[in-house]
Amino acid sequence: MTRRITVLAGGVGGARFTRGLLRAEPEASVTVVANTGDDLWLAGLRVCPDLDSLMYTLGGISDDERGWGRRDESERVSAELNAYGVGWPWFTLGDLDIGTHIARTSMLRDGLPLSAVTERVAARWNLGARLLPATDDEVETLVTVAADGGATERVHFEEWWVRTRATRPALAFTQANVAASRPAPGVLDAIADADLVMIAPSNPVVSIGTILGIPGIADAVRQTDAPVVGVSPIIGGAVVRGMADACLTAIGVETSAEAVGQHYGARRHGGLIDAWLVDSVDASATRALEAAGLRAHARPLWFTTVDETAAIAADAIALATS
Amino acid sequence: MTRRITVLAGGVGGARFTRGLLRAEPEASVTVVANTGDDLWLAGLRVCPDLDSLMYTLGGISDDERGWGRRDESERVSAELNAYGVGWPWFTLGDLDIGTHIARTSMLRDGLPLSAVTERVAARWNLGARLLPATDDEVETLVTVAADGGATERVHFEEWWVRTRATRPALAFTQANVAASRPAPGVLDAIADADLVMIAPSNPVVSIGTILGIPGIADAVRQTDAPVVGVSPIIGGAVVRGMADACLTAIGVETSAEAVGQHYGARRHGGLIDAWLVDSVDASATRALEAAGLRAHARPLWFTTVDETAAIAADAIALATS
Repeated sequence: MTRRITVLAGGVGGARFTRGLLRAEPEASVTVVANTGDDLWLAGLRVCPDLDSLMYTLGGISDDERGWGRRDESERVSAELNAYGVGWPWFTLGDLDIGTHIARTSMLRDGLPLSAVTERVAARWNLGARLLPATDDEVETLVTVAADGGATERVHFEEWWVRTRATRPALAFTQANVAASRPAPGVLDAIADADLVMIAPSNPVVSIGTILGIPGIADAVRQTDAPVVGVSPIIGGAVVRGMADACLTAIGVETSAEAVGQHYGARRHGGLIDAWLVDSVDASATRALEAAGLRAHARPLWFTTVDETAAIAADAIALATS
Repeated sequence: MTRRITVLAGGVGGARFTRGLLRAEPEASVTVVANTGDDLWLAGLRVCPDLDSLMYTLGGISDDERGWGRRDESERVSAELNAYGVGWPWFTLGDLDIGTHIARTSMLRDGLPLSAVTERVAARWNLGARLLPATDDEVETLVTVAADGGATERVHFEEWWVRTRATRPALAFTQANVAASRPAPGVLDAIADADLVMIAPSNPVVSIGTILGIPGIADAVRQTDAPVVGVSPIIGGAVVRGMADACLTAIGVETSAEAVGQHYGARRHGGLIDAWLVDSVDASATRALEAAGLRAHARPLWFTTVDETAAIAADAIALATS
């Protein structure tokens, strides 16, 4: 029987991990539950950075050298928007990318939920996986930062992340309207009915954390009959990509493979994962992780090539199902 | 004192006429009241073809060789939209042009009326004239055409015009919601307070006709103290550009300079104009036009160069104010 694998994933890291997984398990039926906390309205367009990173990477049209967006991009429309004073001058959208945003926004304005829009838009590309937004509701991540005079202010995650490169210390992350949000159709079933659930090496706070914060999803992960395995986004105390350390600090979690594994916690003790794959440099952490109730294994975790990423995914599967 | 001139105009023809007028009267304070009947929602974007033709032409960024849109255009976004199945594959929007549409739509979604949006968008360019939409309301021109089995159907003007090149005989033109529409702020004053009102050589039915169909505008033209002069869009029984003949036929007006002048009619007899400029080949029509109460004059009306267009505008002014 076809193995059903469900991956919780953020953007670029989650996309590359999933690409490797699809190479390791070409026969599997893979569902990706994508973070939507980075989504935003910009110049009247609905931009979904993580869904698009996943779609472009799995569709084979991503700009892997630059690390985001589509290959062969141009930025003529963004230049016009800047000149008209519309949008964020520090948040450049490529022209091909804007095509996606216009198509998506048009369908949303027609009344389709994001999950249906995502299915339609993704149908153009041969992803090899089903792509689901974690929720159809607008649950945007806001970052609380210090303001003048001892006050605080909240800015959209993308403003904090892209404009200020996460240099303003984050005091807290909140997901607007998350309490009233619901998982998108298919998300809970994809977790409950899976043969294996994987947590991609994405930002534990603003990517995976946002997915798990949507009421019902964390419980589904805790309760699924499938084993749950995670891959550490931290190698040797440093973030592989992005600025997850600035996020982990805000929630009081040390930037280490062990601490993030403990943060997710063992399902047998009420946590979210059964197994946790760490890098070879973090091999010394496996004993403490195992003492905490997790199966743990160390191996190189750098996504140097798609084949190497596939080997990492295969090892994660082996760890979870051995 | 600065001469205040108000022009009622459609897209390309109206834009070129106004460009000539501005060269002929560089000191004048010119207001252009633009047709908005061609406007449409396309892929969730508000597209205003005539406002944009005016803005691009007066701003010196139009593609005069192609005859529409902006110079140095590319069409990468439209190709994406087609591939996603969004929008009209036969209605291609340039990338730079889409920048305008996104900026406009974003401001409209923020709650600004079209007139305020137009002012903001146009502020980027040095138009040399004030650009006003005829109305802030959505008054889109629909074309009634024959359908299978003796039935009729109504299609958006742009679909009839661009997709079928006006080849389906038009049975009628209607402006959706026109009865409830109001002139945009400034339009009635621009007509009432003008020293001269000019009707550009635009489509008398779907451009000028739509403007005049907005409640209050035709009365303002009838009642203004300023002389009103029109320039014929018909030369020698043929349309200079576009397919106005297909429109005139639908409303029972012959495609001739004389018939269009009579269609507007002399203000002294309850009509809309005082003077009507026709091409030299239509010189024989001036006697009948004068008998109908119009001042009429014949001279070459081809917009061969901006200077020649300026000379046409100057002759129209002279005819109206002599």
